[in-house]
Amino acid sequence: MTVDLTNVFQQIDGDYENLKELLREAVAIQSVSGDPSKRDETIHMIHWMKEKLEQIGTTCELADLGTQELEGKTVKLPPVLLGTLGTDKAKKTLLVYGHLDVQPAAKSDGWDTEPFELVEKDGKLFGRGSSDDKGPVLCWLHAIRAAQKNNIELPVNIKFCFEGMEESGSVGLPELLEREKDRFLAGVDFVCISDSYWLGTKKPCLTYGLRGICSFFVEVTGIKQDLHSGVFGGVIHEPLQDLMWVMAQLTTVDNRIRIPGLYDQVAPLSAAEEKTYDDIEFDVAEFRESVGASKLPTEDKKTLLLRRWREPSLAFHGIEGAFYGPGEKTVIPSKVIGKFSIRIVPDMDPETVNRLTVEYLNKVWAERGSPNTFKPRPGHSAKPWVVDVNDSNFLAGARAMKRVHGLEPDRIREGCSIPITLTFQELTGKSVLLLPLGAADDMAHSQNEKNNKWNYVEGVKTLLAYIMELGSA
Amino acid sequence: MTVDLTNVFQQIDGDYENLKELLREAVAIQSVSGDPSKRDETIHMIHWMKEKLEQIGTTCELADLGTQELEGKTVKLPPVLLGTLGTDKAKKTLLVYGHLDVQPAAKSDGWDTEPFELVEKDGKLFGRGSSDDKGPVLCWLHAIRAAQKNNIELPVNIKFCFEGMEESGSVGLPELLEREKDRFLAGVDFVCISDSYWLGTKKPCLTYGLRGICSFFVEVTGIKQDLHSGVFGGVIHEPLQDLMWVMAQLTTVDNRIRIPGLYDQVAPLSAAEEKTYDDIEFDVAEFRESVGASKLPTEDKKTLLLRRWREPSLAFHGIEGAFYGPGEKTVIPSKVIGKFSIRIVPDMDPETVNRLTVEYLNKVWAERGSPNTFKPRPGHSAKPWVVDVNDSNFLAGARAMKRVHGLEPDRIREGCSIPITLTFQELTGKSVLLLPLGAADDMAHSQNEKNNKWNYVEGVKTLLAYIMELGSA
Repeated sequence: MTVDLTNVFQQIDGDYENLKELLREAVAIQSVSGDPSKRDETIHMIHWMKEKLEQIGTTCELADLGTQELEGKTVKLPPVLLGTLGTDKAKKTLLVYGHLDVQPAAKSDGWDTEPFELVEKDGKLFGRGSSDDKGPVLCWLHAIRAAQKNNIELPVNIKFCFEGMEESGSVGLPELLEREKDRFLAGVDFVCISDSYWLGTKKPCLTYGLRGICSFFVEVTGIKQDLHSGVFGGVIHEPLQDLMWVMAQLTTVDNRIRIPGLYDQVAPLSAAEEKTYDDIEFDVAEFRESVGASKLPTEDKKTLLLRRWREPSLAFHGIEGAFYGPGEKTVIPSKVIGKFSIRIVPDMDPETVNRLTVEYLNKVWAERGSPNTFKPRPGHSAKPWVVDVNDSNFLAGARAMKRVHGLEPDRIREGCSIPITLTFQELTGKSVLLLPLGAADDMAHSQNEKNNKWNYVEGVKTLLAYIMELGSA
Repeated sequence: MTVDLTNVFQQIDGDYENLKELLREAVAIQSVSGDPSKRDETIHMIHWMKEKLEQIGTTCELADLGTQELEGKTVKLPPVLLGTLGTDKAKKTLLVYGHLDVQPAAKSDGWDTEPFELVEKDGKLFGRGSSDDKGPVLCWLHAIRAAQKNNIELPVNIKFCFEGMEESGSVGLPELLEREKDRFLAGVDFVCISDSYWLGTKKPCLTYGLRGICSFFVEVTGIKQDLHSGVFGGVIHEPLQDLMWVMAQLTTVDNRIRIPGLYDQVAPLSAAEEKTYDDIEFDVAEFRESVGASKLPTEDKKTLLLRRWREPSLAFHGIEGAFYGPGEKTVIPSKVIGKFSIRIVPDMDPETVNRLTVEYLNKVWAERGSPNTFKPRPGHSAKPWVVDVNDSNFLAGARAMKRVHGLEPDRIREGCSIPITLTFQELTGKSVLLLPLGAADDMAHSQNEKNNKWNYVEGVKTLLAYIMELGSA
């Protein structure tokens, strides 16, 4: 029997100022997990959320993760917030994951407003974390509050796992979950993560695949220390000249990877799978405008989506050890480290990607013929993830979205990695649903991150509908 | 008549602890002109030196240069210290230039000792500014003190021009000197600058040429803001990929410049000039070891020196706008600025070098075929400088070195720029002598800058002998 949510949805609309006030409070806490000086605020954020969960009747515990070494200091890790709402053995159990830490942000980075002050403008809620991931985490809270206010019994028990280190590689969390496999994770039937984005700005979607990643460091040295470019310029094999040349051999102008054998590992695209791309609503021109590019390497919808989701890509991030400030500095850097990463897809595995990439780097280095010292090495890696879009968890998510939006959601993939997805799947053995609430242009990690007022409010309704749909899953 | 300096030289040797104490005091003042937070210390350094000059009877004045905008703040410029010692109309007048500011330094940059504490170890005096240029400036002071202590009359009047902005482009000094052309600079017969280095570590030299410089900025943009490499990787023309490719087209692996027409501007090398390179004492293997390279682009002495002194060279300095920290960051930078500079020699002129370089950059950019926005632009430039090695000022310097070291000094050039050299030459119309006191391995601008105890002490003797030799110039 389906509970009618029409009145509850209207109440949620009317409750907007309260929904916004809580997001304002959350954004104001500068929980930048990567900044040691902000670690106390990250811990404070976890405690703030614990209080909110307890207010709706959740039994909470804080799992201590100890300390970590960061920029030469020993700093406390934020605890992981584990919550249990309902222990009815007759009900199935949903595990919800989210994170309460955020990427660094400063107005001077190019924000139009103060990043840690929630500002509403033109139907958008600007602020760091408004979309990634404080907004969606609060949607869970609001959804359950709305059910409780209307005396609607939740058809599932809910467990919460909210961490404060996601933006810094979820340090300690996989190990904690491993330890909690037979206790906190025991009895979980469904997992839901709301930490990704719609493909566009209008049509909802469910996410069934994520790319993995292989990171690389390419170090070139050859002189003892930085040298004055006037005194030594012209008679030195400069490490930075070598590095730029090597990096320039990795891709074509259209951003295709030149490492032999890499594309051979990609799972073949069946006609059936290819056909699913026909129906996906995606406006290439809108996408191009949203990133501000004048032209894209491909402007064919299907090719573009395939390249983002089920083909590897290589991005350059920067160079460590060279001059990076404004203005001029006439120094020859002695040791430079190039940083790039490759996004990987099924059936690529990190070990093979690492091997092929280092082999190729060594081969082009040999062609370069420089006497400098060259050390390519893999950094962190994560496997890609793909699941069945027809399991009961996914179908509950799809029904929920249809109830709120009146539309069948697209089934999409994401180009990025959410490594914890795979951890939850492996440890629970159950289906993990990625249920995005935010729009494609929310600018997570960037300047002027926002959550649309509409997405925030509809997100509350979607999560409530999803919880209710799980009752018949 | 030549004054016998044997006893004075012995006294200078015996006075070592006092010479060292004054250098210790000078190094302890953190006069980093490029750091706004250290500006007061730079001003303090100028006042400290004024007091020392006054103690030897110099009439001093401080020329106020006003303020500058630095990192968004208005900061005071250090005044220029102008001193006059002797106004005997029967004597000629020597103008001495030096600078009291230093490059930034921190132990964490890789120094073995605290950079602003003078540490003596194995006959070396380690400390920022010990060689560039506080040590040489103090050598002038010690030399005049030694003459005064022995009642030796100086055969020339001496004017001092000591600034505190050399490491930051001598802001305001050329304009000040222009204003002082008919007052402070009037009547100057010789100019001497001791702010460069020996070619090796054993044999003294005089410097008759300097390279100029043309700096360049290469900006690539194409997306509105930094993007998540997972979400957008593979479907964007990345500005950083374009930039690295363009930079890689500028030089060969052996650090030869690929810009057409650039080498054509270099003044032809006459047989006579080429012959002067035969006698120069320069150990290629020692040079290679001092920089820590396993192999150099050329290991032929003459070719190597020609490339350092009378051929252009191109060095890469770094990239602004990309990730530069340790670790990983998976972002696609939206706007990157590559920095490089070309050292120029006679008969190259900055305007032509700028034009040829920008034309070449635009040409390779067209070959790249990227839809991104490309903006190459010249930065600051300085002309090269070469003078006659047989004028009376140079010959006085040569005789002084022979008196102290018993060796005829090599006549060399320098690969770097000291733009103020050309300013002094143009405004006074007189000969400028570059009289280096420090050894080639002093590591100015680098970690572990030092001045050899021996060079410091012999430097005092050399400057005293030079002043005395000017009496018969």
